[in-house]
Amino acid sequence: MSNCITIIGLGAMGTALANALIEAGNVTTVWNRTQARADTLVARGARRAETVQEAIDVSDVIVLCLTDYTAAEATLADAAPLLAGKTVVNLTDGRPDEVRATAGRLGGYGALYLDGGIMATPPMIGSSHAFILYSGSADAFEGAKEQLAAFGQSHYLGEDPVLAAVNDLALLSAMYGLFGGYLHATALAGSVGVTAIQFLAFVEPWLAAMMTALPDLAERIDSGDHARDVMSNLAMQSVAITNIVAASRSQGIDPAFMDPIERLAQKRLAGGFGADEISGIIEGMRAK
Amino acid sequence: MSNCITIIGLGAMGTALANALIEAGNVTTVWNRTQARADTLVARGARRAETVQEAIDVSDVIVLCLTDYTAAEATLADAAPLLAGKTVVNLTDGRPDEVRATAGRLGGYGALYLDGGIMATPPMIGSSHAFILYSGSADAFEGAKEQLAAFGQSHYLGEDPVLAAVNDLALLSAMYGLFGGYLHATALAGSVGVTAIQFLAFVEPWLAAMMTALPDLAERIDSGDHARDVMSNLAMQSVAITNIVAASRSQGIDPAFMDPIERLAQKRLAGGFGADEISGIIEGMRAK
Repeated sequence: MSNCITIIGLGAMGTALANALIEAGNVTTVWNRTQARADTLVARGARRAETVQEAIDVSDVIVLCLTDYTAAEATLADAAPLLAGKTVVNLTDGRPDEVRATAGRLGGYGALYLDGGIMATPPMIGSSHAFILYSGSADAFEGAKEQLAAFGQSHYLGEDPVLAAVNDLALLSAMYGLFGGYLHATALAGSVGVTAIQFLAFVEPWLAAMMTALPDLAERIDSGDHARDVMSNLAMQSVAITNIVAASRSQGIDPAFMDPIERLAQKRLAGGFGADEISGIIEGMRAK
Repeated sequence: MSNCITIIGLGAMGTALANALIEAGNVTTVWNRTQARADTLVARGARRAETVQEAIDVSDVIVLCLTDYTAAEATLADAAPLLAGKTVVNLTDGRPDEVRATAGRLGGYGALYLDGGIMATPPMIGSSHAFILYSGSADAFEGAKEQLAAFGQSHYLGEDPVLAAVNDLALLSAMYGLFGGYLHATALAGSVGVTAIQFLAFVEPWLAAMMTALPDLAERIDSGDHARDVMSNLAMQSVAITNIVAASRSQGIDPAFMDPIERLAQKRLAGGFGADEISGIIEGMRAK
């Protein structure tokens, strides 16, 4: 039974997870509210559970991949007595407050709770490009890690079950910063007739070069010292930011994506930190 | 005289530009309002001009690297009669409206005007990692391009002098998106005790992976088709964005950097584009 595993929820991601488990040779049971979603997986060797109860009963490790935490809890509710001693790996997307509540309730049923955040699209699952953050029960992670390795790279962050969700959302927020800046930049270049494909030839190597600045910013953030060896200080950068906003407006581009950096940079300047690196902005983002 | 070139303005960037010209074997004349700034360059082989007039008189190509366009024009004002037939390469940072005004006035003095945007920090100047965008007089670029190659990779964008400045600001805006998202992400991960250096191990490969999505977004932006083969639609992404904002607030992190993507995504959802890719957001950023 050690490689028996169940996947509950067969959307695009759940299906990709089930496929990866089957390919890795696991005895994989699948369940979905709309049963037809399981057909292709069953044809590839998955076992179909007729009920949620059966899906939980036949495996020691239960992977949830549902729409949201409300759906995850509702799906398990009828099978709660069967959860004692099971490992529940919840890969549903959610917020830290939901993770904490669900971890508490499932723990109350006697389950070992492991929460996870999938940093990949469904086609990436099963490749080394996919990575999955886990947090919660260390025993659950140790017991399931060989099976979970089928999904991609596993990173266990610690016992606090919210760690994976917070880091998942943090990584997504970094992506939205990248995408927002890219959309702003492409709109601005487009306003003078540069196509997005033409602009890509500049913006891709430029962003790759700017990525190399992140380790320096990280060191400053951890040390709290934003003033040593400053290459491009906030006062200078603030002029560039103001120019971007003004140029965007005059070119008919909504400067929304530049508003926060402008406001937070001005806040630091007003605080007397104009000679600091841009990393200092983080000090103004944390509640006092 | 063909490789005679003058640099006016010897801040960190102007000094780096002058050094690169000297290393490439150009007869390099330098001028700065505070003359002592030229001493090191003179020791390395630069010629010191005693006046702006002399600095312009001795070279066919005049490179300006000043604080702003007001300073650039003020510096040249007394020497205006000497500018006829000269090539002026203005690498001062500025806005498109300033570029257009300055290009017009210097053109009026009979100068060939080339505007440039330096996409590099001073230590990068002279390496292949530095790239400089140029626009304005094609004759000026053709005549000066061998000397300008000393700075890094040159990209000539076209006759409209504002092209370099707009694309320069656009690239900076992409960088500020990247940095803003990174700062938000690092603050959020930090709220559960993850250090910036620890988080770097996740965020660097993650952002590198997300960079590979840009060509697909670019094709959608150029075609205007945001609906074909959608991997992760705006309605789904909007849930994640809302989760990021809520989690940031509850963790005591100012969600400012996520406000624009949330607002613009909601605007597209309200317009009925929830099934589109995130690239569709750009349609809501352009003035109608």
